[in-house]
This record gives sequence, structure tokens and C-alpha cells, in this order.
Amino acid sequence: MDHIMQVGLGFWASKTLLSAVEMELFTELAQHPEGLAAIEGRLGLHPRSSRDFLDTLVALGFLERRDGKYYNTPSTDFFLDKRKPSYIGGILEMANQRLYPFWNHLTVALRTGEQQNESKGGGPSFFAALYADPARLKQFLGAMTGLSHGANLAIAAKFPWSKYKSAVDVGTAQGDLVTQVALAHPHLAGIGFDLAEVAPIFEEYVARNNLSSRVAFHPGSFFTDPLPRADVVMMGHILHDWNLEEKKLLIRKAHEALPAGGALVVYESIIDDDRSRNAFGLMMSLNMLIETPGGFDYTGADCQGWMKEAGFRETRVEHLIGPDSMVVGIK
Amino acid sequence: MDHIMQVGLGFWASKTLLSAVEMELFTELAQHPEGLAAIEGRLGLHPRSSRDFLDTLVALGFLERRDGKYYNTPSTDFFLDKRKPSYIGGILEMANQRLYPFWNHLTVALRTGEQQNESKGGGPSFFAALYADPARLKQFLGAMTGLSHGANLAIAAKFPWSKYKSAVDVGTAQGDLVTQVALAHPHLAGIGFDLAEVAPIFEEYVARNNLSSRVAFHPGSFFTDPLPRADVVMMGHILHDWNLEEKKLLIRKAHEALPAGGALVVYESIIDDDRSRNAFGLMMSLNMLIETPGGFDYTGADCQGWMKEAGFRETRVEHLIGPDSMVVGIK
Repeated sequence: MDHIMQVGLGFWASKTLLSAVEMELFTELAQHPEGLAAIEGRLGLHPRSSRDFLDTLVALGFLERRDGKYYNTPSTDFFLDKRKPSYIGGILEMANQRLYPFWNHLTVALRTGEQQNESKGGGPSFFAALYADPARLKQFLGAMTGLSHGANLAIAAKFPWSKYKSAVDVGTAQGDLVTQVALAHPHLAGIGFDLAEVAPIFEEYVARNNLSSRVAFHPGSFFTDPLPRADVVMMGHILHDWNLEEKKLLIRKAHEALPAGGALVVYESIIDDDRSRNAFGLMMSLNMLIETPGGFDYTGADCQGWMKEAGFRETRVEHLIGPDSMVVGIK
Repeated sequence: MDHIMQVGLGFWASKTLLSAVEMELFTELAQHPEGLAAIEGRLGLHPRSSRDFLDTLVALGFLERRDGKYYNTPSTDFFLDKRKPSYIGGILEMANQRLYPFWNHLTVALRTGEQQNESKGGGPSFFAALYADPARLKQFLGAMTGLSHGANLAIAAKFPWSKYKSAVDVGTAQGDLVTQVALAHPHLAGIGFDLAEVAPIFEEYVARNNLSSRVAFHPGSFFTDPLPRADVVMMGHILHDWNLEEKKLLIRKAHEALPAGGALVVYESIIDDDRSRNAFGLMMSLNMLIETPGGFDYTGADCQGWMKEAGFRETRVEHLIGPDSMVVGIK
């Protein structure tokens, strides 16, 4: 019964944390710990419930309180201070603004199979609206980095990069994956491939990491243009956005861009083959129902099957961190 | 980082369970286990994501899947089958319909101190609208029973009932507290006190438990009428709905209704005195921000102080189950 209530009312804890991120509480407290009155003033909190709000965050393990002052925990200080490069709050900002209200319509989505975001009922597609607005695009791409940074480090560490000389990251966004791979492996040349609108955001991120001489941006659409050639093609959080035919097309295009012996690395929250353990991967697939016309997440076995069908001779699944795994296909 | 993401996106798991309760999936599977196609047909699920939905519930521990058929777990079969008296899903139905969308406005509530439910911006009060609609009232009162049943059993077991002959439950709703106390203690006479609209719902519940000869309904408003006299006055999930002055008034009225030696039993998710551990109690207080003009939850020390101020000579706090405790005052 406790598990039922805890999950059923779990949106309370979720929304409390999301509001704290929205109000930049952790960024504020990263400057210095503060008492109740100071926080009320800085964040514009009404005194009726400010103490309940902060003490909830203490009880949930996101703040500490000592001698009447509130402090970030080491984890919230590292991951939720907007001024630190380790900030992962972009995905939570997006969850707060968009996903929380869209998920209110989950039952309708489950009954109709139709997306429930900005595009609902024939509105402009989320991606079209996003790419037309540089500020929103930058926020979204930052959110994607927050969601993938840990896995990007794991790919840089676990994949046998010494065998390869070049890598292209398809749908690169801010470029964190190719950045982490290039930082860890100075012999590699990297390409970030994405729509032209992404160029300034990518180039700023790469320059900040002193990689402009080895990592370049290549503009294009992965549906209408050929993919840039490289020894390794990477696709992180790309395939799940698309329907089965589109997924297979992208895998075929990756195969075409690779030399014999080259590798395709697909990664996201790959669902376990029994579809009974990776709850996050399964819910990410429900999120694709909310967000896209035909996208879905999939198991390692599913992806290995599609790779084999496209001509890859060898495939394997390897766990990265948390809910994320990579599926590797060798041409 | 995993804890931040798990809580920040925790509304995914929450809403998945709430949609399953809304569609009466567990009530359906309590009849007999079913395969994917049968469930799609019975619930009207679109095939695009029905398997993701059901497998998410497996991965979250709310369903089991064996040989392609889905089964309730022992816990969801007992607590989430609408046809069983042990059903606690009423509170989750209400969370799905009302609280989830209202909590989307938590940040506004925290900045203004104003409620964010049906009454927002001067709409009719939630309680007024509720009591005017018998079907909604019955659903709400069932939700309250779901939320309190476990604690009601604990009060029946832990309080020294042999010392007392009569008990009145103030704001009794469906009457589960006085019902459980009377079932466990055949020497007691019980009264349920609530607005007149509640009478038929209370009387049906008491009759179903064969207690009509010992447990009676007494109509009235706890603000405008005196409380019925009894050896024990109980208030479960009542005080947190009201502001400080109203809380103190209700405690004074309980004191007036008791004989010397009589007991006031107040219970709900009493917050720990350090306000750092009972996260559910603290979030319930934020829920009172969303739901009421001035309500809030409080610590055991807070309540003992108000009781002392009203003239109770002895007070104590005793844990019940989960997040719930009772505060007892002896006149």
C-alpha cells in the first residue's frame, strides 16, 4: 500500500523539485547558504508555505538545514547550480514547462495513439517551433546535454576508440557526446551533424572545451542529406524519436556512411529484452507517445535485429550508466 | 544524479499508475489475467503504446507478466480492485482528476500563497461544489477512506479504548474511523458528525458493517454548531484544512464537548518536530496550499502546544502507520 501511495502521489515530490529548479533555488544557495527570510526575498516566495517548501526539499534529500540556514547538498550543488558546467537542470526545466502538463493527457494518448504536446490537433510540430526560436532551441539542447552527459562520459571510456580515427555524431545538439569522446581521445577527429540552426550553439560549446581544431560542425538533415563519412557513426537519443520505417532508414544511412570495419553506436535508455526491468526506458517510450507522431523506445534485441537487416555483420549491447545502454554494430 | 532525475521525472511513473486506476485496469485483471489484445479491447487502448504502458506497470511492480498474460500483484489486487472493500483507489482517482493538474501551478501558489484548485480566482469553494453534487461527494468521501483506512485500524488497536464508553468522530465523512473503532470495541457507542449531506453515505457504510445499532449520524457544522458530547473526540484529516485561528477554535470546541478525563485524538500526517523527515506530511501541507485558503499541516509539538493552550492537562504523540501519527490530549 505504501508503494502504491508513494508512486500514485509521486507527482508531489516531482513538482516540488521542478518548482525549485524553475525558481533557481539551488543556483541561489550555491552562492552561500541562507535563512528562510532571505530566501523568501530572493525568490519572491510568499511566507504562507515557504518553510514547508524548503523543509520538503530537506526531507527529500535535496537540501540540508543547519542552525536555521538552508544549504545545497553536494549533489544538488554540483548538478543543479546553473552557473556550473555540470548543471543538468535543463531537462528538468523542460519537464516543468512542457512535459508535466502534457502528461496530464496520458490517458487520451493511450486511447488514441496521438501525441499530446504543442502539435496536438494539428499545431506546428514541436521541432519546427523549436528550431524557429534560438532561445528555446538553446534551452532544449542544454536539456539534452543534461540528460546524456553521464552516458557520454561512459561511451568515451568504454568504446574501443583506439581502433578508429574519426567519428560523426548524428543529431549532435550541443555536441557533448563528440566533445567528451574527443577530450578523452586526442587522436580522434570529430564531426557534429545537425540542422544548420544548431551551428552557433554547437560551435560555442566546442570552443569552450578548446576543441575547435579537431571537432567541426557539418550542417544537414539526417533524412534528406547523406550522413558525413567517418569510422564511427554515433546516434544518441535519436532513433526513439521516429517510427519503425524511419528508424530502419537511419540505420541504413549509417551503414552507407561507414567503411568496412566501421562501427555504428546507438545509445539511449535501451529497454531490457524481457521488457520488465528498465522502467525508465519504458516510460521514455510513453514520453515519445506524448511528444512524437510515431516514436518509441526499443530493446537491445530489437535494435540488433534492425542492424543485422541493414547489413551489419556483428552487433552487441553494452550497459553504460543508469538506464542507458549502447548498441554497437560493426560493418 | 540518479535521485535527482528519478524524482524530477517521477511524475511519469505517477501518471502511468493514475491512468491505470482511471481506466480500471486492476479491477479488470482482478476478474482474470488477460493478454495484450484482450486488454486493448476491454480498456479501449490504442495498439501504438499499450504494450509500453502495461510493461511499465510490470517494471514498476504493479503488474506481473507470465506467458504473455498480465496479472495483478497481490498488493494491486487487494488495494486497487474497485469491487473489493479494501479498494484505496478513490484518493488516486481524485489525484488523477484534480490534484495532478492543480499541482502544475505550484510555483504560482508558492509565490502568491493562494490556492490553485476550482476556487482559484474567486470560483465557488471546492467544498461547496462538492457537497452540492452527491456523486462527486461520494467519490471524495471514498477517497478519504482510502487515505485513512490503515491509520483508522491502528487507532482502533493502539488507543486505550477500554477506559471510555463513547466516541464522536468530527468530520466523519464515510465513517471508517468510528466504524473500525466500534468493530474492535463492542462496548463503545459511536457518533459520526458531519454536514447533513453526508448522512446517507455514512449510514450506508455503517449498515454495511452491521453497526447501525451502536453508531449514529449527528448532522451539523463543526464551526457553527456545538460538537456532540462524548468521552473521546476524534478529528482525522480535519485540522490541516484550516488556518491557525480555525484550528485553535476546533480544539477549544473539542475541549468543551469532553468530560474531565476525556480525550481528544487528532490524527493525520503529523510532521516530525525537526521538520526534516516526514516528507509526505510536508508535501500534504503544500497540498493544503493548493487546496485551501489557509490550511497547513503541523508538527506534534505544534499541536500539543495548541492543546495545552485550550486547557488539556496532558498530551502525547504516538506513531500510527506510514506517515501518520496521532496527537492525544487528556482534559
